[in-house]
Amino acid sequence: MGEKYRRRMITVNARATFGPGEAFKPVTIQRRDVGARDILIDIAFVGICHSDIHHARSDSGTKAYPLVPGHEIAGIVSAVGSEVTRFSVGDRVGVGCLVDSCRDCAHCRAGREQFCSGYVATYGSVGRDGETTQGGYSEKIVVDEDFVVRIPKAIPLQSAAPLLCAGITQYSPLVHWNAGAGKRVAILGFGGLGHVGVQISKALGAHTTVLDLSLAKRADGLRLGADDYRATTDADTFADLAESFDLILSTVPANFDIDAYLNLLAMNGTLVCIGLPKTPPSISLNTLRHNRRSIAGTKIGGLSETQEMINFCAEHGIGAVVEVIDADQIDEAYDRVVAGDVRFRFVIDIKTMADH
Amino acid sequence: MGEKYRRRMITVNARATFGPGEAFKPVTIQRRDVGARDILIDIAFVGICHSDIHHARSDSGTKAYPLVPGHEIAGIVSAVGSEVTRFSVGDRVGVGCLVDSCRDCAHCRAGREQFCSGYVATYGSVGRDGETTQGGYSEKIVVDEDFVVRIPKAIPLQSAAPLLCAGITQYSPLVHWNAGAGKRVAILGFGGLGHVGVQISKALGAHTTVLDLSLAKRADGLRLGADDYRATTDADTFADLAESFDLILSTVPANFDIDAYLNLLAMNGTLVCIGLPKTPPSISLNTLRHNRRSIAGTKIGGLSETQEMINFCAEHGIGAVVEVIDADQIDEAYDRVVAGDVRFRFVIDIKTMADH
Repeated sequence: MGEKYRRRMITVNARATFGPGEAFKPVTIQRRDVGARDILIDIAFVGICHSDIHHARSDSGTKAYPLVPGHEIAGIVSAVGSEVTRFSVGDRVGVGCLVDSCRDCAHCRAGREQFCSGYVATYGSVGRDGETTQGGYSEKIVVDEDFVVRIPKAIPLQSAAPLLCAGITQYSPLVHWNAGAGKRVAILGFGGLGHVGVQISKALGAHTTVLDLSLAKRADGLRLGADDYRATTDADTFADLAESFDLILSTVPANFDIDAYLNLLAMNGTLVCIGLPKTPPSISLNTLRHNRRSIAGTKIGGLSETQEMINFCAEHGIGAVVEVIDADQIDEAYDRVVAGDVRFRFVIDIKTMADH
Repeated sequence: MGEKYRRRMITVNARATFGPGEAFKPVTIQRRDVGARDILIDIAFVGICHSDIHHARSDSGTKAYPLVPGHEIAGIVSAVGSEVTRFSVGDRVGVGCLVDSCRDCAHCRAGREQFCSGYVATYGSVGRDGETTQGGYSEKIVVDEDFVVRIPKAIPLQSAAPLLCAGITQYSPLVHWNAGAGKRVAILGFGGLGHVGVQISKALGAHTTVLDLSLAKRADGLRLGADDYRATTDADTFADLAESFDLILSTVPANFDIDAYLNLLAMNGTLVCIGLPKTPPSISLNTLRHNRRSIAGTKIGGLSETQEMINFCAEHGIGAVVEVIDADQIDEAYDRVVAGDVRFRFVIDIKTMADH
């Protein structure tokens, strides 16, 4: 085992769950020593993503316990390896869903590391050193510099952290499907992802509509740039907006009537499914045929695209709207996310982890 | 009622079915007199489309009996109205799935008449004169010149007839999704649609693979231009071709494992569903997410696009491979189409209709 993965060990405080439904507990975990191309990050804030809850509560079948979730990481560089060229101590940086990939496949060579079959997820994955990765609900993390992005000063670290997953997950499809001037975009679901998607879509120049269960968060939607905000529990919404959108991003992590939303697509319109329902939805091909519609998938973004997204957000004053919580409040926050009771993303203040 | 729809009546022989599963019988039907913008066509050949069978045997719920199907019509102009400018007596012409539309909506103005909510289908639809339309299993038809296309001399009429539906249904998505040099296209199902799709895809410059249940028609596939021909009953096909296609056109009018075919799509690949299964298929969004795949619908084509398709086929020596049948053989032909026993399209020789 070479220099890169020599493990002299850095011990850090973290919060882990030991099984599905178990409360989070203070633990210490080991980080590998800083290799030649590694960066040591003192984590300042970490976002709570809905998929953390899927993994921690085992909806998605995670078996790697104890589990330290967290892939919306923002912090400050505190050490760099001897061959690191892009970062220095003191830099503001972020880490998202990936901490490694094969570097050699067509996807990696094209900067689409998220599609590499050998990618290493930030937590719950097995890294190239054979160790299970542990995420950002922890004081420090060691990451290869290629999987670290720079966070411009214009974005406070707590607002930047959720961008590493929620932001790129919205930015990538919005850019790929040409959201911009003259286009009509709908964001389905106004939560952790959707409230960032609205800001990005608007900044790209698209006419942007929020579709949410109720009008409860309408004022927030309009404040963040939505041109229109409609309740999906109101049948008039589906009549009024029929055949009107070029692009709909669904952030809903549950089954819903896809057919009803396909009907809202204009000519050549695309429904992009970002939230994943538990069971495969069925789709009416007749509805898909009309207007030559498409339904598509997307998956976070590559590293260079993530840097581009963060820069775009900094330039346009975009950040996540967050509720900062203490490390002791993770379980409560999870319950509130499941209940839809958060405006709009919880981030854990990592300095509250040291008190134990 | 103006000149256009004044009905002095033209009586013609036709073949009609009087209810689901009833045999076709000789009948006479009335065509409206030739209006100012109308063309009278002496039909030479009409193709038997799988959707004719759906309609005639009421799978799709047709209630308009007696029903004269047929929307793959090729023939010769025998009279033109006083204001007709584009056609003359003796011209070789074709009529496809549409004989009218509103002319006023955004779709019509953009030449996408097939998406007009007021379009009039060639049979089983109610025309603007209030009469139910009757299709091409008949000696003559009267059609507004805007819904007639010219058939170049390079294509025999019997080979041209199926292009009016089978051809445009393949050409439109192939062109829209950029089939061409450097792209890899798969045609799923090697029947009436697929055997035309292969020729068009190849002529557009794409590397073209046929995926069919067996290798029974492989020699035909290679002769028509396929670069590769694989059996979908062979599990190796799915391993060998994983993540390899930019575009898959499914012509299969039945349920199949969509997920298995999504896995064959490369980055940004699209599965276009042309054949419509009876029940809505379910789709794994996880499979869709990988490689940012899409599943899309398409619907025949507009009139100008249909003319473009016919011209393209003439230029590239493309035509349907047909079995010419007598008017008395329609029922038998239907049974053979349902059994998949046709190479590759039946066309009715309309002159055999006069004998009764």
